[in-house]
Amino acid sequence: MARSYSKPADGPSPARDSRARILSLLTSRLAVALASVFVTLVYCSFTSLAVQQSVPTKDAFTSSYDLTPIQATSRGPEAKEKLLILTPLKDASPWLDEYFENIARLNYPPNLVSLAFLVSDSTDDTVAKLRRRAARLAKLPKAQRYDSITILQKDFSFNLASEVRHGFEGQPVRRAFIARARNYLLSAALRWDHAWVLWLDVDVVRYDPNILSDLMSIDKDIVVPNTLWHLEKNWDFWGFDRNNFAETEASLDLLEKIGPNVMLVEGYRELMTNRLHLVDMPTHLGLAYVPLDGIGCTFALVKAHVHREGITFPTYVFENEVETEGFAKLAKRAGFEVVGVPGLLVFHAQNH
Amino acid sequence: MARSYSKPADGPSPARDSRARILSLLTSRLAVALASVFVTLVYCSFTSLAVQQSVPTKDAFTSSYDLTPIQATSRGPEAKEKLLILTPLKDASPWLDEYFENIARLNYPPNLVSLAFLVSDSTDDTVAKLRRRAARLAKLPKAQRYDSITILQKDFSFNLASEVRHGFEGQPVRRAFIARARNYLLSAALRWDHAWVLWLDVDVVRYDPNILSDLMSIDKDIVVPNTLWHLEKNWDFWGFDRNNFAETEASLDLLEKIGPNVMLVEGYRELMTNRLHLVDMPTHLGLAYVPLDGIGCTFALVKAHVHREGITFPTYVFENEVETEGFAKLAKRAGFEVVGVPGLLVFHAQNH
Repeated sequence: MARSYSKPADGPSPARDSRARILSLLTSRLAVALASVFVTLVYCSFTSLAVQQSVPTKDAFTSSYDLTPIQATSRGPEAKEKLLILTPLKDASPWLDEYFENIARLNYPPNLVSLAFLVSDSTDDTVAKLRRRAARLAKLPKAQRYDSITILQKDFSFNLASEVRHGFEGQPVRRAFIARARNYLLSAALRWDHAWVLWLDVDVVRYDPNILSDLMSIDKDIVVPNTLWHLEKNWDFWGFDRNNFAETEASLDLLEKIGPNVMLVEGYRELMTNRLHLVDMPTHLGLAYVPLDGIGCTFALVKAHVHREGITFPTYVFENEVETEGFAKLAKRAGFEVVGVPGLLVFHAQNH
Repeated sequence: MARSYSKPADGPSPARDSRARILSLLTSRLAVALASVFVTLVYCSFTSLAVQQSVPTKDAFTSSYDLTPIQATSRGPEAKEKLLILTPLKDASPWLDEYFENIARLNYPPNLVSLAFLVSDSTDDTVAKLRRRAARLAKLPKAQRYDSITILQKDFSFNLASEVRHGFEGQPVRRAFIARARNYLLSAALRWDHAWVLWLDVDVVRYDPNILSDLMSIDKDIVVPNTLWHLEKNWDFWGFDRNNFAETEASLDLLEKIGPNVMLVEGYRELMTNRLHLVDMPTHLGLAYVPLDGIGCTFALVKAHVHREGITFPTYVFENEVETEGFAKLAKRAGFEVVGVPGLLVFHAQNH
């Protein structure tokens, strides 16, 4: 059965008039504008909420890391292994520009590299200069930027007069303070995901851009290149870091005689140690390496697990050594391999 | 001189018509809506940009810390000194609930306390249980929450059969692995702002809620309470941690005889060391303390600067000791004070 629909009369109707008023109000330009603003705001807040939730807010409270897969292998950059460069500083302002230019030339993906500095007992503008440099580096596109830069300060109230700083008598106290600075720097800067640590002095002024891959290819726990003086105004060189040494029968005899608690220092006429020094070895044999018993840390590449297993820089005399040479002796005692590469050269400024 | 302005004729004008069309187009509802959306979006992005800038985005890249003011004093909680509690774990699931209940009772502001765990070579649900506990603790109001919880994993592929685990012969290998675990935990969890480190075994089941203030009041670099067995079903006790010891003339004679590279272990009938043990000292003298030469770390409070200066748990034999006793010997060699408080008791579960 068909129904008949009656069309309402088109006469005056208060109800219809108020409906039309409401309709025109709802479709007015003001209403449309307000509705658009409202919808846009709701949309904005939802998307920004989504962004906030994708950032792990709870992770600020709880963090969970598996250290087992963190490895340092001979394929460092290809395996995306993270490198931490550690540099202790004291009144180092004049060296910083050249330092940053040199590390910028390193063939290692910058986003895998973290830099950390510990500035201690300084009276110059080292910290301010570091901060300015970090601010400038922060403006680089993310792919060209370092992973992170950490600037630490710690004063030890230590100021040995510079005349005695490199003299024989000042060495035990001076070296113990440098060891403390290194340990503070290491403990504050080493992150769970770093695979490698490079100890780099601020006044190492020249090295090959491929040196990291070369050193990593040797695949040892601790490896150092040969550090030479960089003489001003010409490219002549001269052995510098005599802390890279191997014991000999003659030196072991001496150690036996004096006992383990006397500190030995290399490179002073006052004491002939009869050790074999990396700087005196032939430099034409490419990546050939030799086992060492002591090292300096002008440029020292360390697999991070060595430090994670507790090997630090002794502030006390350990097997006749403190600081970097003591670090090598501790590492050897704990079963790690320490080697030097006489053919890989880095140049240290002749600044004292 | 007055200028006369001529009003344009109101006749047909193509220019005026197109102007009117453009005007009506610009004031249409669609245009108003689009304009509103546009203005709102611009406003939103500006304000969210402002929010982003107030969050230090650059700080993810650059961080800058001054470690000089970080001090551990006798007034720990009042001086708002931050405490890191470190607990190495292996198949520890059955102990976790009681562990968390015990630390929750400690009289130390929870927002000054960080917790960190290293789980190694475990086959039970220790990690899952830790994560669930951390998620639950994250829901507490901020004032009642710990500063942070860090859950680390690191497998050493070490599984000494449990029959030999506590036997005399298994000790050197077993203790070296525990030392490695402690060092990994320490290096990944110690933050630049921690003033104190508490080494706490998961199976320490009873201690006084005021023990931290009591230990801090003694104001030494390393201080340990007296760890006793907690016998099941009654409150009898029995000396447990014989690693808290002081050398005697008789023990020093023995050390002299065997040389520094032989590892000594306390508490085995196979070897009488003739050392003086904290567990054998009188317990009624309150906070009186005695200097120690070796410690265990069932419950050991350490000023963080001891670790920051490079003192870790030797994995090698150092002055006849490894791990926690070796840690005490290293600390003493580096000039730090190590003491024990016979009158402060903590109770260890009798779980083996």
